Amino acid sequence: MARVSIIGTGTMAKAIADVVGRGGGAVDLLGRDDDRVTGEIVVLAVPYGALADVVARLGAQLAGKVVVDISNPVDFTTFDFLVVPADGSAAAELAEALPASRVVKAFNTNFAATLSTGTVGGQPTTVLIAGDDADAKALLAGIVTAGGLRAVDAGPLRRARELEAVGFLQLTLAAAEKVAWTAGFAVAA
Amino acid sequence: MARVSIIGTGTMAKAIADVVGRGGGAVDLLGRDDDRVTGEIVVLAVPYGALADVVARLGAQLAGKVVVDISNPVDFTTFDFLVVPADGSAAAELAEALPASRVVKAFNTNFAATLSTGTVGGQPTTVLIAGDDADAKALLAGIVTAGGLRAVDAGPLRRARELEAVGFLQLTLAAAEKVAWTAGFAVAA
Repeated sequence: MARVSIIGTGTMAKAIADVVGRGGGAVDLLGRDDDRVTGEIVVLAVPYGALADVVARLGAQLAGKVVVDISNPVDFTTFDFLVVPADGSAAAELAEALPASRVVKAFNTNFAATLSTGTVGGQPTTVLIAGDDADAKALLAGIVTAGGLRAVDAGPLRRARELEAVGFLQLTLAAAEKVAWTAGFAVAA
Repeated sequence: MARVSIIGTGTMAKAIADVVGRGGGAVDLLGRDDDRVTGEIVVLAVPYGALADVVARLGAQLAGKVVVDISNPVDFTTFDFLVVPADGSAAAELAEALPASRVVKAFNTNFAATLSTGTVGGQPTTVLIAGDDADAKALLAGIVTAGGLRAVDAGPLRRARELEAVGFLQLTLAAAEKVAWTAGFAVAA
């Protein structure tokens, strides 16, 4: 199984590391100052605003790798809009900044707690994965399913725009206490 | 309880009529050629492309009423994008065309079958409602909950953009047989 490096030390970084670990995969948790990335799959578990710095520091090392964008580029001051262009996405920006990497969007519609418990409202937690490289998506899907979750191919990378809308909407509902941070959107097959 | 008029004769029109009926509410199902609208709440259960015609024929009668937009403005030829501006929504267009009406977005994230069965993946079917008029949203929510479903206030009408992204994504997943037309996104509280 592919080695996974996770950049970030927050709850999402730890929850994704747990998923990889449950599946028996090798995982490195890297702080933002670590400068060696060994995984074939690299999860950027940092806020949207920190992506540019990661690209500047580690971009050359990410060439050829599967790079997973989990961000929700929400304006957290107003909680009322996304800070990316209306016809774009954080993932599209990242793919443009890392042309030699295989960028996929995933995990941004999952709350950390649901990655750990493996369930949302009685359904298996489902990781929606968008990307233009079928092999990259399959590689990540294998790790997700080995970790006990469901993986669903959500289409090409331009579907990241819709995934980020789902993530944003879900965050607004949780912030307004309409759904719990342990619940949210489930995907019933 | 407010009388509901439903314009349209498709599966969504019938499923929404069932919800109203289960709650004991009065409902009229109107074909596109009927020219009298009696309900206080009017559900436009027609495709996005037919909304302009409804506005042209019945707009004056819709003044003061709660008008419910259920549309998913998907380009059904490519199934790859929405036909509304990236920073807009079908609901926003409708609200602009009907300035004297109280437009809400609802039902566009629900497949017809889940309105009829009342469940999605073991969760109660949840109708996400966005709008700028709190009373209008509460009126619709009352009808939805009387009909045995959950209603969740999804925020102001500008959140229709995200609801339409959710509806679009869900349609692409169903078309690709990643989810069943009897399932899809559930909302776990």
